[in-house]
Amino acid sequence: MTTHADPRIAVERYWTAADHRDWATFATTLADEVVYDLPQTRERIRGKERYLTFNREYPGDWRVRVERVVADPDGRQAAVRTLFTTGDQELPAVHFFTFDAQGLISAITDFWPEPYEPPAGREHLVERY
Amino acid sequence: MTTHADPRIAVERYWTAADHRDWATFATTLADEVVYDLPQTRERIRGKERYLTFNREYPGDWRVRVERVVADPDGRQAAVRTLFTTGDQELPAVHFFTFDAQGLISAITDFWPEPYEPPAGREHLVERY
Repeated sequence: MTTHADPRIAVERYWTAADHRDWATFATTLADEVVYDLPQTRERIRGKERYLTFNREYPGDWRVRVERVVADPDGRQAAVRTLFTTGDQELPAVHFFTFDAQGLISAITDFWPEPYEPPAGREHLVERY
Repeated sequence: MTTHADPRIAVERYWTAADHRDWATFATTLADEVVYDLPQTRERIRGKERYLTFNREYPGDWRVRVERVVADPDGRQAAVRTLFTTGDQELPAVHFFTFDAQGLISAITDFWPEPYEPPAGREHLVERY
């Protein structure tokens, strides 16, 4: 049984469901033993029920859209760039997904890279955008 | 001609060469018109020569090792997690690569996600690692 064997389809479904707060559909993408990691805070959430609660309780009137999907069916994994918006604030994020043999998400690692000032000394090589 | 048609092989070669400061080998992975983006500072570097100079001039006695490769041959792209170390300081990074028809790297986007303190209110769901 491979309900979401294509990582690209699975992550699109995951993000569309998150954007719609459709936690029933969101849940269908997750393995029961899913592990969610935030390396920047060294936080970890174990299990589908806890991870669903984390998402349901997450504050803010955010929207999310997918900007880029790197799909690796052989490796049963995907990497995704998203853009979260809350009002006029934009926050890019990067996510790594691992899938089990049934095509369900068994591991998620999220990164939230914040803006910073560029160091001096490379102005002769770069432009700003 | 597809000298580096497998994204996984190309990115391994790129990172091994960077770790060894072997800029001649590093250069063989890059398209002449490569574009390097740093979304957090909104810096952009255009062209192989400038990008090589940027890397040659980059300060510090850093080492880098690849932690995870997501390879998408159909999409001619890859996503990579690395760990940079300078002395006892560790800095994780995330990189997105796009390849041209010859298997050369035509675009690179780097993210440097820094540690931050977790917000209050989710201690009932998370563990720290």
